Amino acid sequence: MMSEYFHPYRDVTFALRELVGFDALCESAGLSEVNGELAEAILEEAGKFGSEVWAPLNKVGDQNGAKMTDVGVQESPGFAEVYRSFVESGWPTLTFPEAFGGQALPNVLGTAVNEIWQSANLAFGLCPLLTQGAGAALEHHADEALKEIWLPKLVSGEWTGTMNLTEPDAGSDLAAVKTRAVPEGDHYLITGQKIFITWGDHQMTDNIVHLVLARLPDAPAGVKGISLFVVPKFLLDENGEPGQANDVKCVSIEHKLGIHGSPTCTMSFGDNGGAVGYMVGEPNQGLAYMFTMMNHARQAVGLQGLAISERSYQQAVEYARERVQGTRKDGSKIPIIEFPDVRRMLMQMRASIEAMRGLALLAAAEVDREQYADDGEQAKVHGERVELFTPIVKGWLTELSQEVTYLGVQIHGGMGFVEETGAAQHYRDARILTIYEGTTGIQALDLVGRKIVRNQGVAMNALLDEIDAFTQQLEADAELAAMAVRLKSALEAAREATRWLLEEGSQSSSAPGAISVPFMMLMGYLCGGWVSCRMAHSAARQLASGQGDSAFLNAKVTTTRFYCEHLLPRTQGLLDTILSGSESVMGLPESQF
Amino acid sequence: MMSEYFHPYRDVTFALRELVGFDALCESAGLSEVNGELAEAILEEAGKFGSEVWAPLNKVGDQNGAKMTDVGVQESPGFAEVYRSFVESGWPTLTFPEAFGGQALPNVLGTAVNEIWQSANLAFGLCPLLTQGAGAALEHHADEALKEIWLPKLVSGEWTGTMNLTEPDAGSDLAAVKTRAVPEGDHYLITGQKIFITWGDHQMTDNIVHLVLARLPDAPAGVKGISLFVVPKFLLDENGEPGQANDVKCVSIEHKLGIHGSPTCTMSFGDNGGAVGYMVGEPNQGLAYMFTMMNHARQAVGLQGLAISERSYQQAVEYARERVQGTRKDGSKIPIIEFPDVRRMLMQMRASIEAMRGLALLAAAEVDREQYADDGEQAKVHGERVELFTPIVKGWLTELSQEVTYLGVQIHGGMGFVEETGAAQHYRDARILTIYEGTTGIQALDLVGRKIVRNQGVAMNALLDEIDAFTQQLEADAELAAMAVRLKSALEAAREATRWLLEEGSQSSSAPGAISVPFMMLMGYLCGGWVSCRMAHSAARQLASGQGDSAFLNAKVTTTRFYCEHLLPRTQGLLDTILSGSESVMGLPESQF
Repeated sequence: MMSEYFHPYRDVTFALRELVGFDALCESAGLSEVNGELAEAILEEAGKFGSEVWAPLNKVGDQNGAKMTDVGVQESPGFAEVYRSFVESGWPTLTFPEAFGGQALPNVLGTAVNEIWQSANLAFGLCPLLTQGAGAALEHHADEALKEIWLPKLVSGEWTGTMNLTEPDAGSDLAAVKTRAVPEGDHYLITGQKIFITWGDHQMTDNIVHLVLARLPDAPAGVKGISLFVVPKFLLDENGEPGQANDVKCVSIEHKLGIHGSPTCTMSFGDNGGAVGYMVGEPNQGLAYMFTMMNHARQAVGLQGLAISERSYQQAVEYARERVQGTRKDGSKIPIIEFPDVRRMLMQMRASIEAMRGLALLAAAEVDREQYADDGEQAKVHGERVELFTPIVKGWLTELSQEVTYLGVQIHGGMGFVEETGAAQHYRDARILTIYEGTTGIQALDLVGRKIVRNQGVAMNALLDEIDAFTQQLEADAELAAMAVRLKSALEAAREATRWLLEEGSQSSSAPGAISVPFMMLMGYLCGGWVSCRMAHSAARQLASGQGDSAFLNAKVTTTRFYCEHLLPRTQGLLDTILSGSESVMGLPESQF
Repeated sequence: MMSEYFHPYRDVTFALRELVGFDALCESAGLSEVNGELAEAILEEAGKFGSEVWAPLNKVGDQNGAKMTDVGVQESPGFAEVYRSFVESGWPTLTFPEAFGGQALPNVLGTAVNEIWQSANLAFGLCPLLTQGAGAALEHHADEALKEIWLPKLVSGEWTGTMNLTEPDAGSDLAAVKTRAVPEGDHYLITGQKIFITWGDHQMTDNIVHLVLARLPDAPAGVKGISLFVVPKFLLDENGEPGQANDVKCVSIEHKLGIHGSPTCTMSFGDNGGAVGYMVGEPNQGLAYMFTMMNHARQAVGLQGLAISERSYQQAVEYARERVQGTRKDGSKIPIIEFPDVRRMLMQMRASIEAMRGLALLAAAEVDREQYADDGEQAKVHGERVELFTPIVKGWLTELSQEVTYLGVQIHGGMGFVEETGAAQHYRDARILTIYEGTTGIQALDLVGRKIVRNQGVAMNALLDEIDAFTQQLEADAELAAMAVRLKSALEAAREATRWLLEEGSQSSSAPGAISVPFMMLMGYLCGGWVSCRMAHSAARQLASGQGDSAFLNAKVTTTRFYCEHLLPRTQGLLDTILSGSESVMGLPESQF
């Protein structure tokens, strides 16, 4: 019944080695000091820190959530101490450039480490996750002066960062942003209200760096008139230390279904004349800059889907081993893990997790491959792959995490519904994942619209061709041929869906939106099957050559087989739905709902 | 943002009339005073009571859940007054025999009314639901003396009833029940602990009638040694009025994910020597008696799945109409109900609900058809149909309600994760439904094992033949032929799965368990499609003949079409999974989890 966490080190390093090809990636990127051995050492340390230091605060944060006080938000008990030791250990710095105090490690390794924080404590993990996003936005878009002032302490984690996008009337629709920025000398005065600001306030660090979308007085209407500003909680004195309070404060926090340890703030800017802000980059480019942050954040939220699933799975396995029900003929009690339906649920969780992790790491590695590409053409190819993967990683992983954490509760039976057990917390915490950083619907629209139709299917077809080539390899292995048949059938479904989308769906104004989520899910199941089969293929090769731990390798093959039999077949129904188009979706007059 | 509820009167009465054939049912049952007109009058009154009196306490119960106090459980504020007026209005009496103060109305009408209480306030609705189950168990199995003492006040609702089955080591496995019953004079002394007892204590009525499973001293081991006892909270004095407290008390209540308004009690019997209990029926027949109660309760919990889905849907529709996002070219704002993906989610909720309601009512009507059958042969046929439907109604409706309430939150975006909105409460409340009264896994095992394999597929094939005959009718209607194609394909999937189960799956010890949930879900989607198509078929006939409200009737057809395009295709993947058998489910050694 303990909600403990251990890092699935062997699964992660297997995926890094066999699926991502970590050593080759580092070599071709010219990162001569980075290799699999270093990565494994880092993961081992992070795993220890995650399970020993972060995980025990997970339930504490749930039961003693962040609170609103007279001096602002008070985070959950114990968080400040842990955050301090997190910063002292240098964990926030992994992937940032050395010039700003980072360690310049590949994004895919940072992603593998981030899985640990998010599994150990999802609500707490949001704080460094957003700080990293804010840091990345400054790194890529701020001028040198601004970077020098604000970036090093975001990199070190001494200060935390936030993203201030949403307003009461501007959720998915950023064109409606109303917050104003009026120039005054070397800075701007910001006025407005932002809602749903994650970790918008706390007492853990001596400053908070808010990145805020706002409009200049002469800005064009809509999304082309949004600029990005740094608005610190405390202004800096002549020594660069936080001094006078800026005109920004958290006015309330939300009472939420889950992630109670993560304060969700309504932020008020400029109640006393205007909060001092500094423009990032050029005027009216805020949306583009935000997309840099969002691509990062979207993959990171997808990763959270994996992370909470892993946590839920571990707890379910432990319960299923311990809980007995029924008696054998010899009088001994039967642990429920022996029951076929419990086994089915555990396998479903496990197979989903393997696929999710594979896809999350593969997508993260594409970010490295884009960054370290030899030439512009290669960078473009990898960049397009990142663009294609991002909504699938965000959308599909988080949707799947709902089912996985649901099963985590289900395996506990009645105890799963009792809060003390802890299974329900994962289920509640997971629920935000398909909503924030763009709902599943937004991800799916991004995939079918921006990433496929606008790209005329080039990147998509390249991916499908790559999966096709692998499927042919897989068919050649007699033991795995049955998997290849199912993967191929899912691939054909994706091809047919893509063809339909490009040739027919895109002719209608409502069809892409009406079938976008089934389409995104189909792509997720296919990509998940592809990465799982690739890992099973590696495992089978190792088994054939007598290398490695055969129990571990056989488990990879069996888990993938389960995936092919229980998850891949869903693609057939999804295709059927997609080909039905939008008539029945849009056919009911509004008055009849 | 209001969490109001109105009764979907037109949809319910349409289903009663067109699907159930309510008038014909009453006529052939010889219930000469009951007809559709009376049913509609009752539903109208109940709908008013539900939306005006019950629904406003739904959030109150969530936010001010039942509390443990020195004198026992204190229910949520306002519940006692509402319960009193519920009893005074005679609502609990509808389906009980007239001899005990009931109105002898058909079960299907009681079910339609019960949907209202469960939609309006799921946590509160559990109290009469269990009282009715306890009453039914006494009605069918207690001797006349016991009935005369305890039944009238359960029928009137002046006293409430509970089911005491589960013990710490006896959940799904009732063979492990340890509670003891020792004979003493005309009664028994009961000693033991029961957990997860819904509405096990409260202050709303002056007595509570616990039905308790316990073992006699000489009882055989296992399920064949369980007897059923009436154990009142207060013993009756010579006037039949509650007097001295019995030796039973609630010792604690659970802190749960949802249904906070429903106290979930740990009950202790016999701390001071033994609680006085009276045996129901014969010794060692407790399990069989409990099954009477459970069949009723399982269909009722399935109905709760429908009810919470309806509530969640109504709230989502209201939000989707009011919430605007984005701007039209003329400057007006766009309500999100116009967005195709939002429309898709609403249609998915709606199509699921129509199918759920149809199936719940059809199954409830089979209970009437069994009871009022002309001869034993007819009764057996309808009885087998009840047996077959019950696990599907419980399993499939409650599983579907998870997805529907999930979408209810999703349509709210970020606001859905904020508790004040109310969408999250439905999601949390719904989560218990796939667990209590037998988890989904238990229902599915019951379906494949007891109801299909043991019955050698007779009842199942009769159902499939009936669906087949209807499909041929549907094909004949040119407008609905596309639906018929999809329904037929789902039917073929069910036939193939059934054949596989009977011929191959049943040969393996693990296969039935490993594929039981996918099998049950496949049957659910098929039956849901069948009832939806039947209603669409009626609607189409009425449209063709120029009868009725064409907007309403067209909505039925469109909603069913959506069901056929978005839900029925799932059967193909499920069949594929079922035919894979249990190898990958059971293939992983326990140590590898």
